[in-house]
Amino acid sequence: MANPVLVEMLRGDRVESRHRGSIAVARPDGGLAFAIGEVHRPIYPRSAIKAIQCLPAIETGAADRFGFGDAEIALACASHSGTDRHVAVAASMLAKAGLDASALGCGSHEPISAAAARSLMKAGHEPSALHNNCSGKHAAMLATAVHMGEPVVDYLRPNHPVQVRIAGALEDLTGARLGQDRVGVDGCSAPNWAIPLANLARAFARLVTGEGVEAGRSQAAQRILRACWAEPELVAGPERLDTTLMTRFNGQLFTKTGAEGVYCGAIPARGLGFALKIDDGGKRASELVVKALIARLLPRAEDLAADEVVPNWRGIAAARLRCASPLLEGLGVASF
Amino acid sequence: MANPVLVEMLRGDRVESRHRGSIAVARPDGGLAFAIGEVHRPIYPRSAIKAIQCLPAIETGAADRFGFGDAEIALACASHSGTDRHVAVAASMLAKAGLDASALGCGSHEPISAAAARSLMKAGHEPSALHNNCSGKHAAMLATAVHMGEPVVDYLRPNHPVQVRIAGALEDLTGARLGQDRVGVDGCSAPNWAIPLANLARAFARLVTGEGVEAGRSQAAQRILRACWAEPELVAGPERLDTTLMTRFNGQLFTKTGAEGVYCGAIPARGLGFALKIDDGGKRASELVVKALIARLLPRAEDLAADEVVPNWRGIAAARLRCASPLLEGLGVASF
Repeated sequence: MANPVLVEMLRGDRVESRHRGSIAVARPDGGLAFAIGEVHRPIYPRSAIKAIQCLPAIETGAADRFGFGDAEIALACASHSGTDRHVAVAASMLAKAGLDASALGCGSHEPISAAAARSLMKAGHEPSALHNNCSGKHAAMLATAVHMGEPVVDYLRPNHPVQVRIAGALEDLTGARLGQDRVGVDGCSAPNWAIPLANLARAFARLVTGEGVEAGRSQAAQRILRACWAEPELVAGPERLDTTLMTRFNGQLFTKTGAEGVYCGAIPARGLGFALKIDDGGKRASELVVKALIARLLPRAEDLAADEVVPNWRGIAAARLRCASPLLEGLGVASF
Repeated sequence: MANPVLVEMLRGDRVESRHRGSIAVARPDGGLAFAIGEVHRPIYPRSAIKAIQCLPAIETGAADRFGFGDAEIALACASHSGTDRHVAVAASMLAKAGLDASALGCGSHEPISAAAARSLMKAGHEPSALHNNCSGKHAAMLATAVHMGEPVVDYLRPNHPVQVRIAGALEDLTGARLGQDRVGVDGCSAPNWAIPLANLARAFARLVTGEGVEAGRSQAAQRILRACWAEPELVAGPERLDTTLMTRFNGQLFTKTGAEGVYCGAIPARGLGFALKIDDGGKRASELVVKALIARLLPRAEDLAADEVVPNWRGIAAARLRCASPLLEGLGVASF
């Protein structure tokens, strides 16, 4: 069974391309408030679970030991844009743990921020692992290993204590059992675990409400959320969707994007978590869908449901992205 | 009815993302040698039809009048990488027609070639319309208007004689009727016409064989093919798939990519044309599919059917792209 079409790209009055996918909205007890498409097949959440991957850094006391404040914790949850500030915070996290960039196992890529990439290039510098959008997450993993007296050199091994603790937090919040058949290697070389959307949605509902979560973990989760809301620019970057959304709906909404068309998040006041994946991995579609979902879940967010103009090279509105009927009808009749 | 899954991306041993789409392989008389998915619904071929859009520049005598050789004709058929040579040929086409870059209506974007983009940036220059991957096509359109004594300022208007001649060539070769309900605006602001894959495949079979084509048009088509085979680097650029394929299978294979997951081409010795589109517009999938198709259609091309490793930021083979069962099974039983 094919997942339904969630997003259509139109050129002229004709559908040019279409994106299929699935969405789950869940309560902390795992009850589904909304589902479209296949939500029980494990998918790789990629970077969308960085806030959960950050929990052990708080719970072990590593963050306190090394004096990590909101900035460091927000960056640990980030797919950051590689601006000077992102890089500086990542470097300071490593320095506080007595390490430097050479400890990072995430590999290097150009800053996501075009402006940052341009100024790096103009200065004649190559991008380093600090510019990798995951460097904050890796710095938090490394700091945790240092704090616990564990080896740092192989911190990305799936059975390294750092990764075992993360898998434990994921199992606790998602309710999914993460056997070795679930593990893949992420773009940043960290283990990533395949988990159904229904379980991911439940995990984010638990993360933000604390319902069904042990007190220490719930407090760690609240500290993480406060950090992301205090520093939304550090979770992504200028003009990036997570930053825009968490700046506008500060304290009301948590969101996090992941590669290959994943989006996760939660609305604490509603007690709802959500998770979605576009089948083909298309980011333009995952972003349109998460905005349409939030428009339906949050008050005064209706404008997020608008079609998106896709301008061509001369700025002409040659194409646009819109939510497809199965998504509109599904959201229309949903009783959240 | 959903089109079948043609390409899967795997992470670990698990399918992470999937791309659906359709393929048509046709003979010059329009008979289908192979079809998978929906091939009778009109789709925008985008840049995949540039060789057909180039026909009037030859047929009107504009190319002869302005002394366009293989380089200029290949660039007119190109989605080029914006290297110094691409830009120089585009500029010389305009100069030969008494124009300059200010006549181009395609808009500007950074060179597709990362190296060219980098050196432009280092020199402190902004990209111009000459760097637009379509600048050769636009220069040929403009030269045709000049040659015919037609206004140049509005050459992108769908009912401008330049565009009417192109639509006529498309109707002739595809056998499709292109009413006003079929027109959209391309990324480069030129009109683009929605045409079914079955008709596009037939058009490319006719283009390379000349079967069913009036003699003057057939000669123009042969001149275009010879130009692309003489200058495959000008049709795309270093390390781009069209250039790689037409360098390796010079004289045996014509291919041309288009935006939003389109690929068209033909194999003259087999008398077959092909056209494919990935539903979601994914280029990684259209490229994998066209290679698998060519592996089946050309001798000594089996290596093109291999899976494609997707390395992560540290160079680890974290993921790979493979042809999905419906495509493998379809190609396996096809009798070309």
